[in-house]
Amino acid sequence: MKKYCSCVSEVVARRLTLYLRCFIQLKEEGYEFVSSKELAERFNLNSDLIRKDFSYFGTFGKRGVGYNVDEIIEKIKMILGLQRVYNVAIAGAGNLGKALAHYPKFNEGSFRIVAMFDSNARKVGRTYGENNIPIFHVKELPEKVKELKVDMGIIAVPARAAQQVADAFVKAGVKGLMNFAPARISVPNNVKTVCADFRALLEMLAYYVSNLKDSE
Amino acid sequence: MKKYCSCVSEVVARRLTLYLRCFIQLKEEGYEFVSSKELAERFNLNSDLIRKDFSYFGTFGKRGVGYNVDEIIEKIKMILGLQRVYNVAIAGAGNLGKALAHYPKFNEGSFRIVAMFDSNARKVGRTYGENNIPIFHVKELPEKVKELKVDMGIIAVPARAAQQVADAFVKAGVKGLMNFAPARISVPNNVKTVCADFRALLEMLAYYVSNLKDSE
Repeated sequence: MKKYCSCVSEVVARRLTLYLRCFIQLKEEGYEFVSSKELAERFNLNSDLIRKDFSYFGTFGKRGVGYNVDEIIEKIKMILGLQRVYNVAIAGAGNLGKALAHYPKFNEGSFRIVAMFDSNARKVGRTYGENNIPIFHVKELPEKVKELKVDMGIIAVPARAAQQVADAFVKAGVKGLMNFAPARISVPNNVKTVCADFRALLEMLAYYVSNLKDSE
Repeated sequence: MKKYCSCVSEVVARRLTLYLRCFIQLKEEGYEFVSSKELAERFNLNSDLIRKDFSYFGTFGKRGVGYNVDEIIEKIKMILGLQRVYNVAIAGAGNLGKALAHYPKFNEGSFRIVAMFDSNARKVGRTYGENNIPIFHVKELPEKVKELKVDMGIIAVPARAAQQVADAFVKAGVKGLMNFAPARISVPNNVKTVCADFRALLEMLAYYVSNLKDSE
């Protein structure tokens, strides 16, 4: 059987991005130290899992004091590889592509959106948003991806075009793809994909809502 | 400390939606039975975890034959509460709201988008897309949510407006919110939220890409 995506192994990385958000929030609120118990209570997390995760990555809190907030933030950023800048390209300059291009904090820190691609002649040649992201024709994708040293590709095109765009990104050397199209994409083993499936999120919400109705 | 979201407890529901997608795909390809081993290999999952998850929910495969694909699909749909129709409203008729409103399979099966809300006078009073979803003023949200029996609210407004919109949904009796705004929202304990944080997805991809570069 052919392999498509590795969604379950995303679980640990998902937790790390969640912890990062929690710690950044605590830092903004002035916390310098936080215990796994406080962290668990505050963000509805499992304190055993927190301790397990952090010890696995070689990070440990001080007994009676907890985790050093600054230290953990740096550590998680290091583990997630966020201490460098990634060039990101968005394929698709429709509603979704545009929403992503101006999504707050999407184009700062470790990530820089360097190009958008579309097949609509009225969009090609223009720039989008306050950061003036250039919109190229999707035919130029392989060439521009190499020229602009794109590290990650975001697929925000209709489902029917998703595989073709994925192939073009992969051929141009991109090793990470985020797929917003509701279509399976097949990539070589040395390329990582993250599936952003809105429908799956709605289904999770249905799960919660239906269980609330049963029990409350 | 105040509680904000329960992202880690989403893990099981997340796996169920993933399994559902896998089984639907297998059904489309003509499979009637599949073993946990085949499922694990095909979709890069953990076969022990599959068996554990399914036995926890009282579903079991036949030795030597595997899981009955149709049966599992119905079972997961039942567990996720997908055997009824949920009325969904989208707050925000900008790029993101529009992208969601016409996202494939978002407005079919168990989900029906019954309304959009915006504060832009040029959008209010119109309809959006081929399903003619009505766009109401955000001030009408409480009234329309009750009138249209909205079960779930999607927050696709700027971060500064997210809490206000969440409060309005909650006050009108909505028990499930999907938050696309990069802002913390605070809700009562009997309301469930799902965070759709694009930045977290990018960070996961960074994790993969940086590890690929180290090892390959």
